[in-house]
Amino acid sequence: MSITSNTLSIFALGGLSEIGKNMYAIEYDNDILVIDCGNKFPDESLLGIDLIIPDITYLVENKDKVRALIVTHGHEDHIGGIPFFLKKLNVPVYATRFTLGLIELKLKEHRILRETELIEISSDSDLDFEDIRVNFFRVNHSIPDCLGIVFHTPEGDIVHTGDFKFDLTPSTNEHSDIHKMAAIGTKGVLLLLSESTNAERPGATPSERIVGEHIIEAFLKAERKVFLSTFASNINRVQQVVDAAQITNRKLVLLGRSMVNVVAVAMERGYLDVPNGMLIEKEQINDLPPDKVAILCTGSQGEPMAALARLSTGSFRGAEVLPNDTVIFAAGPIPGNEKNVSRIIDNLFALRAKVIYGSGSASGMHVSGHGYQEDLKLMLTLMKPKYFIPIHGEYRMLHQHRLLAESVGIEQDNTFIMNNGDVVDIENGAARQTRKIPTGNTYVDGIGIGDVGEIVLRDRKQLSEDGMLVVVLTMSKAEKKLVSGPDTISRGFVYVRDSEELLTNVNRLIIKSVNDLQGSDRDQWKVMKQSIRKSVGQYLFKQTKKKPMILPIIIEI
Amino acid sequence: MSITSNTLSIFALGGLSEIGKNMYAIEYDNDILVIDCGNKFPDESLLGIDLIIPDITYLVENKDKVRALIVTHGHEDHIGGIPFFLKKLNVPVYATRFTLGLIELKLKEHRILRETELIEISSDSDLDFEDIRVNFFRVNHSIPDCLGIVFHTPEGDIVHTGDFKFDLTPSTNEHSDIHKMAAIGTKGVLLLLSESTNAERPGATPSERIVGEHIIEAFLKAERKVFLSTFASNINRVQQVVDAAQITNRKLVLLGRSMVNVVAVAMERGYLDVPNGMLIEKEQINDLPPDKVAILCTGSQGEPMAALARLSTGSFRGAEVLPNDTVIFAAGPIPGNEKNVSRIIDNLFALRAKVIYGSGSASGMHVSGHGYQEDLKLMLTLMKPKYFIPIHGEYRMLHQHRLLAESVGIEQDNTFIMNNGDVVDIENGAARQTRKIPTGNTYVDGIGIGDVGEIVLRDRKQLSEDGMLVVVLTMSKAEKKLVSGPDTISRGFVYVRDSEELLTNVNRLIIKSVNDLQGSDRDQWKVMKQSIRKSVGQYLFKQTKKKPMILPIIIEI
Repeated sequence: MSITSNTLSIFALGGLSEIGKNMYAIEYDNDILVIDCGNKFPDESLLGIDLIIPDITYLVENKDKVRALIVTHGHEDHIGGIPFFLKKLNVPVYATRFTLGLIELKLKEHRILRETELIEISSDSDLDFEDIRVNFFRVNHSIPDCLGIVFHTPEGDIVHTGDFKFDLTPSTNEHSDIHKMAAIGTKGVLLLLSESTNAERPGATPSERIVGEHIIEAFLKAERKVFLSTFASNINRVQQVVDAAQITNRKLVLLGRSMVNVVAVAMERGYLDVPNGMLIEKEQINDLPPDKVAILCTGSQGEPMAALARLSTGSFRGAEVLPNDTVIFAAGPIPGNEKNVSRIIDNLFALRAKVIYGSGSASGMHVSGHGYQEDLKLMLTLMKPKYFIPIHGEYRMLHQHRLLAESVGIEQDNTFIMNNGDVVDIENGAARQTRKIPTGNTYVDGIGIGDVGEIVLRDRKQLSEDGMLVVVLTMSKAEKKLVSGPDTISRGFVYVRDSEELLTNVNRLIIKSVNDLQGSDRDQWKVMKQSIRKSVGQYLFKQTKKKPMILPIIIEI
Repeated sequence: MSITSNTLSIFALGGLSEIGKNMYAIEYDNDILVIDCGNKFPDESLLGIDLIIPDITYLVENKDKVRALIVTHGHEDHIGGIPFFLKKLNVPVYATRFTLGLIELKLKEHRILRETELIEISSDSDLDFEDIRVNFFRVNHSIPDCLGIVFHTPEGDIVHTGDFKFDLTPSTNEHSDIHKMAAIGTKGVLLLLSESTNAERPGATPSERIVGEHIIEAFLKAERKVFLSTFASNINRVQQVVDAAQITNRKLVLLGRSMVNVVAVAMERGYLDVPNGMLIEKEQINDLPPDKVAILCTGSQGEPMAALARLSTGSFRGAEVLPNDTVIFAAGPIPGNEKNVSRIIDNLFALRAKVIYGSGSASGMHVSGHGYQEDLKLMLTLMKPKYFIPIHGEYRMLHQHRLLAESVGIEQDNTFIMNNGDVVDIENGAARQTRKIPTGNTYVDGIGIGDVGEIVLRDRKQLSEDGMLVVVLTMSKAEKKLVSGPDTISRGFVYVRDSEELLTNVNRLIIKSVNDLQGSDRDQWKVMKQSIRKSVGQYLFKQTKKKPMILPIIIEI
């Protein structure tokens, strides 16, 4: 599919009607600029899948046009797909200093750091791509060094907010560039793409500073060790933990691979200030009085292999949660993770720890990094765009975001609620949503990328629910007679020992199926297999109300 | 295991450290009285399992002692296991009129209604079982006709609260027997078993009446059809919907099997008052103006086959959600159901419906039936028991409930946080938790009860994540030589067409494995299978990072 030149086109390859794998693109004439390349974690229906990344077929087909990948910030749902992307499209990557640090960790792991061109930008950068000039503005979020982007195109200015909230009292001096945003809006914005994660939540997002106050309070109150779990990438919160440790004269232990790695990046690059001598190894914990130790760890989402899960079952050698230790969840559970988090809380209570937890900001130990309705309305008001595309959210969030846009004066018809792959074309200042480019989910399973699709997943689903029954028959080629078997083997179906009668009957049925076939049907193993599958399937369903996968195998000798 | 007579024993066969399958028992001398017999729905880790019920081995072993099953109320987690229980232990079932109606629906389905002795009781009933006399008190909950139970034993009085909240302004005249509870407490309670579902939530549970007010408001505001989804068993809420329909002059359609069945039971037994002519069939919807119709349906938990899910995808013939119709979720999502509920909301917005939803009581369309902390403290205060067992909840809820008990003056050592199977024995007024009876989960899968266990589930898990590879070899008995094959068949592993090279290499490896076996190892198919499993497994893991189940089958001819 090719595009009329002098049309400005905007589309998403991920991030619409979903939370995760954000990837947006702007195309004009011979240039495509890509914004972010995230991943997404599969839900339980995607059996065995490790990761979902955007399907970038369209970009690969238009390889020569892709000029750059510009990254708004360093969260997984914005950078997690980058190594897979770069292996197919080796284009320069533009990101801020901290974001680049996190991207480098990934590229090292995938062994493609050296061949990648990484270009550091800041909110003051000015990039020039033929017809499109690109500027930036700083936004607050739950990770340092986040950008919103302005694309100055021949059709007018397009703004992409990145992920943001307005935090007027941030815990660092990283303020939103609110004056710059106002200036952009004053000049006139043709199209705004703004994130929608919290479009359902009324009010304004609380400030990160509130969390710091609660952390200090909890550290002061704790009579023994304090464990605190949060996202490693939330470096401003990590800084608040460091500050609380300093105030209460505690040494700090880092547990969990991503905590150790990300903290190292943040310290190296000047985003985190840890007093000399504060960091100790977990082996030193028992050398200190319990009220002189704090442990900062991964696993706030209940991930079964992360530090906190292992601490909660006493299986983290060297670090133990003991009675009256305090454990703080400084992150709310992401939808879908509630059960895993709850299990850990149960285990920690059983260890007689004091556990501080709660959904969302209920415990005071977490605030969202995504703007609530008032934040979103402020962005819409500052930018006062002609056209609006709500991005980064499930359908209901995009829908609610449209209502917010309407409430601040953006005409309903000028808001486009799109799916991944839908294209908005702008010509002569007028936008229309008409066509679609191919896109979707690419599954990563083990090393394989895209080698598992719908058929494999359908089989896994059947196997997972009712197991399978392999039926082996040996037939003589000459006489078309059964010479050995049937042998049946089942897995994941029922206890075989308790089901001898069932399997005896299955064998009888198979022999009957084979004998019933007459004439030419007898020659066709395919017909024979179908007949076995049908008769055995019906019998087992009647007897057990289960539908195992039945796999007849015919050996011809 | 037998019990010293003149010891009073209390234990749970379900309901502790879990939400679901509630089942408690009191044993004294030659009598066992059982309270409730619920089921529980499996989480996604229990692949293919339909239902979990309590393991009642202990009761079956002590069959002759079991005198009665007494049921506190008609929710699934209190009655869902009854048919399975009665098939093994045909004892009389005691329950209130409405609860019996729901139990009868189940027994009919399982075709055991006729042989079951059902005995109707009320909050005024007085039952006599040799050494134990049983009385009741009425409690508020989210279903009509709920009971708390007092067991007058030779050791003292034991109180089981059932599920409860204190609703001082209920939507019907079914008030809690608060004076009776006070009298019980005044007389002296030896042991209280009280439910813990909302022990983590501060404050008092809002009144059901609030929901009625919001429903009327939404019905008045709706310009077209109104769909409302709630639990069928919440008959007081159904009554409020009926009232709202009457006020706004709408006809009412019932959609979903359980809604139709439970409403019929409630109407027959006098728990629901529906004006003559209000109920219409779904075929009549289009004969009426849209603002004269309301639809009450199942599916508030996002169940994929229930009415609301089908409505949201336009696949419910005869009933359609059209633009500007109103859809009300009058039930919060139970933890674990959020994703399914969200998907339906997304679909309804895409149909351009107005959707009223929200977690918990945020939308005003739902209140919990379980008491919050202040309700629980009131119960503890009224009963002022010597001993306390928090029941009906995950570990953290039981833990929080203990803290609440402590806050109103119950000594920490007198509270027992127990697991299913743990026994509290009371002798001479003193309670100790010492021994355990065998119990656990019984899985229902299809027709089978208990025929699927850990091994089958482990196999299902492996099959679900990485699929399988069947390897068939035909070996000559005489020469111990490969005469045909290897043939490989995979399912749920990778796309076979894209993996020809992989499978060719697997075949080579298998031949090598067979040829490498020397001497007597060659005779032992078991050794050969192990060797194939190992070499193929290692190769596939190296190539794909997946671990499919490898099933070698050797045919001997």
